[in-house]
Amino acid sequence: MRTSMLALGAAAALFTGLAATAPTSRAVAADPAADVIAGRKAAFLLSGALFGQIKAGIDRGDDPKALGFAARALAGWARAIPGMFPAGSGAAPSEAQPAVWSDRAGFEARAADYAAAAAKLAELAKAGDKAGFAAQFGEVGKACKACHDAYRKPDDHH
Amino acid sequence: MRTSMLALGAAAALFTGLAATAPTSRAVAADPAADVIAGRKAAFLLSGALFGQIKAGIDRGDDPKALGFAARALAGWARAIPGMFPAGSGAAPSEAQPAVWSDRAGFEARAADYAAAAAKLAELAKAGDKAGFAAQFGEVGKACKACHDAYRKPDDHH
Repeated sequence: MRTSMLALGAAAALFTGLAATAPTSRAVAADPAADVIAGRKAAFLLSGALFGQIKAGIDRGDDPKALGFAARALAGWARAIPGMFPAGSGAAPSEAQPAVWSDRAGFEARAADYAAAAAKLAELAKAGDKAGFAAQFGEVGKACKACHDAYRKPDDHH
Repeated sequence: MRTSMLALGAAAALFTGLAATAPTSRAVAADPAADVIAGRKAAFLLSGALFGQIKAGIDRGDDPKALGFAARALAGWARAIPGMFPAGSGAAPSEAQPAVWSDRAGFEARAADYAAAAAKLAELAKAGDKAGFAAQFGEVGKACKACHDAYRKPDDHH
């Protein structure tokens, strides 16, 4: 239990500072890469907000069935992530590391890990397994962090 | 108050059936358009899940300050939406209407309306205005619907 609570804390900490990073206007894109970068950054904030709502639900002791749609949405986004990092979309304001493209197989494997962890979270939600859901939420956070540590530039918000 | 409750119901109804639409695997993309379509569909599900969590928070009588990040994330996504509909990304499985491109100014105006409505929602959250937040949530849902009615194909889920 101690381990899962630590994992939960680590998962929540991932998004610390995210609220301050929301863009205030859509950049006028001169190229498709800028649009896809803006899109994936916006979806990352959606993920972060959803992560926060799931954590709040766990903290309240909610029936995890009420959080299953959120978990499935995270899994769906995880599966879309590789496609949101096309070649040539690594310039600022992207925070992607060059390894996203130079180690593509590794990057896609980490995204698949995230999708699998979120899909398992959704299964535990469906089963109404409150303790399992809380523990698995920590695993989802670790899957996010494993990918970010390797493929996302460190920034001031982390 | 009656009006805002009706609006709230309409907002919630927008996402009816969404849970069933989550993709079970990432399509292998033969072209960048397929990737951006998968990305925007996944982000739509994130939005839907977040919408559901906000509604649940309103129904519980939560302090709207706990929902401000979610509102800002919706606004950020709204601003990214036009860029996620590049030319040539209208084929199946996209549910976008041709008007997204033939009436681009109208489409971008509806997306901007959504962004403005969500930004106002975030302001009301920050102010801790519970009644105002609940009423504005209905307005956000109406902004979604106004755009979908004009620019998204009707489907079995609505």
